[in-house]
Amino acid sequence: MARDLVIGVDLGGTNVRSAVVGDGGVISHHAKLSVSGSTSADEVIDHIVACVGQTMASCGRERVRGVGVGTPGLIIEETGTIVFAPNVPGWTDLPLKSLLEQRLDLPVMIENDANAAAIGEHWVGGGAGYKHLVCITLGTGVGGAIIINNQVWRGANGAGGEVGHTTVIENGVLCGCGAPGCLEAYASAPAIARQAREALHTDEESVLRTMCGGDPGQITSAMVSQAAQEGDAVALAVMHRAGTLLGVAVASLTNLLNPEIFVIGGGVINAGDLIFDPIQHEIEKRAYKWSASILKVVPARLGDDAGIIGAARYFVISD
Amino acid sequence: MARDLVIGVDLGGTNVRSAVVGDGGVISHHAKLSVSGSTSADEVIDHIVACVGQTMASCGRERVRGVGVGTPGLIIEETGTIVFAPNVPGWTDLPLKSLLEQRLDLPVMIENDANAAAIGEHWVGGGAGYKHLVCITLGTGVGGAIIINNQVWRGANGAGGEVGHTTVIENGVLCGCGAPGCLEAYASAPAIARQAREALHTDEESVLRTMCGGDPGQITSAMVSQAAQEGDAVALAVMHRAGTLLGVAVASLTNLLNPEIFVIGGGVINAGDLIFDPIQHEIEKRAYKWSASILKVVPARLGDDAGIIGAARYFVISD
Repeated sequence: MARDLVIGVDLGGTNVRSAVVGDGGVISHHAKLSVSGSTSADEVIDHIVACVGQTMASCGRERVRGVGVGTPGLIIEETGTIVFAPNVPGWTDLPLKSLLEQRLDLPVMIENDANAAAIGEHWVGGGAGYKHLVCITLGTGVGGAIIINNQVWRGANGAGGEVGHTTVIENGVLCGCGAPGCLEAYASAPAIARQAREALHTDEESVLRTMCGGDPGQITSAMVSQAAQEGDAVALAVMHRAGTLLGVAVASLTNLLNPEIFVIGGGVINAGDLIFDPIQHEIEKRAYKWSASILKVVPARLGDDAGIIGAARYFVISD
Repeated sequence: MARDLVIGVDLGGTNVRSAVVGDGGVISHHAKLSVSGSTSADEVIDHIVACVGQTMASCGRERVRGVGVGTPGLIIEETGTIVFAPNVPGWTDLPLKSLLEQRLDLPVMIENDANAAAIGEHWVGGGAGYKHLVCITLGTGVGGAIIINNQVWRGANGAGGEVGHTTVIENGVLCGCGAPGCLEAYASAPAIARQAREALHTDEESVLRTMCGGDPGQITSAMVSQAAQEGDAVALAVMHRAGTLLGVAVASLTNLLNPEIFVIGGGVINAGDLIFDPIQHEIEKRAYKWSASILKVVPARLGDDAGIIGAARYFVISD
């Protein structure tokens, strides 16, 4: 039987998910396992193997050509080794590619999760048809990836594309990375929730007070987005601020890289124009007209599946 | 006789300069003409042709293989057409390559001046031996160029590399480009002079008051640099501020592009450690350790000749 199927895997901090990825990025045979209780690399790898096993059991193991894995962390591309990852236990100096190849008895490719999502969006998502793009994902962090001439730019030692760690406020809020004023400290989902909590320290009225059941600690970026869409002034100001600082970074990147398109994904983009309008405003204010004249800024189209689809791309032959 | 020589040309706002560029970037047969009185593209082209003529007269016209021209402005690479340039009269929608080929009866290549300088520094200057570099030139403006995999990244429509128009202060000083808070508005030579003038509005003592003959309007960045090297507190603060904001941009670029090296040139770098120390400080404060661990920041080595040498590179065969 022909080995006509490819499996994509997306490892996150909470779950590992896998699926068969076919021509045109069509996915099927989903599986999902929790990894949140894991305390070691071995346990995480066990979960990955089990998850892939579920997908293979349903699609037929003998048909699988290879397994592409998107994972958090810094990766040595040539060897598929994880140098480190902040949020996965044991994910340090780990030869993940060879470990998984032994366990699965199949060819494996390892890709950084932000790069995998960008490869997916570039292949069959919001960036399809463009050669030069920047992908930004507004989630727990602000992920980024740069594709130039249809190739992911990984940087000199594998750490390129960190759009989220562009300084947008010189002496701003301390980011999780340790630096002040990174974009991630203003435009990630937790940063949006934090800014809403801070705004509630004043006496201003806001539906967020009700939404969070009186405990501002319970505020999420989804609540802020919903409140903003209902016209709540506090929530609107927070979303506008996040969108504006994202726009400052996008405008700088436009002048620097002159890409064709920004593809912006992650849960935060459910706020729609509340995020995209201030980005456009900052581009008009700051970017060179010539660069801006060809520039598009679009939402990501593949949602949570971008990473699975992109991770599998390497082994997909037909398009 | 073999066509064994290449001529490089650097067009600036004040002068056009040309020279023979040989193996290893060695240059000879310099010529220089003023272009500052020119009022049309024809006049500027006449000066370029005359300048190249002087170099050819001394090296032997029949030995010249081609002429590479570095010029301000946005260039369509394929055709060698200038789309526009802010500071050269008539430099709009100008098919400079074909016009010069007709006038010189030789193959001509046109390159943006910042890119030409970067190509020169990459070939035989501060960036020699590196594949991935960012060049920043602190002069009348803050020029930039990105080289990835030994190739200049020109952007999707030719406008890439504008490091000087990265936002470093969200609502900062208005830059010449029309945007607020660009790096150029703080770290170019005129910006350094401006910040020194502003500092003198206070009553603080400064040798700059004597240096400028009592007229702060006469202050230059060279004066600020000299005063800083003499320990003048006002001048030190201004240079430190310029270096710090340059460092903020360099750190963001390190996270974004993960290059091997920054090569920093232009008259402002005569201030030496007064500029380079704050850059290092901001890298340590803001850049990912992994990216920073391989990163070098070095002064440019070719001075004013970088553009001539880089412009000629295309036609140089032997190395």
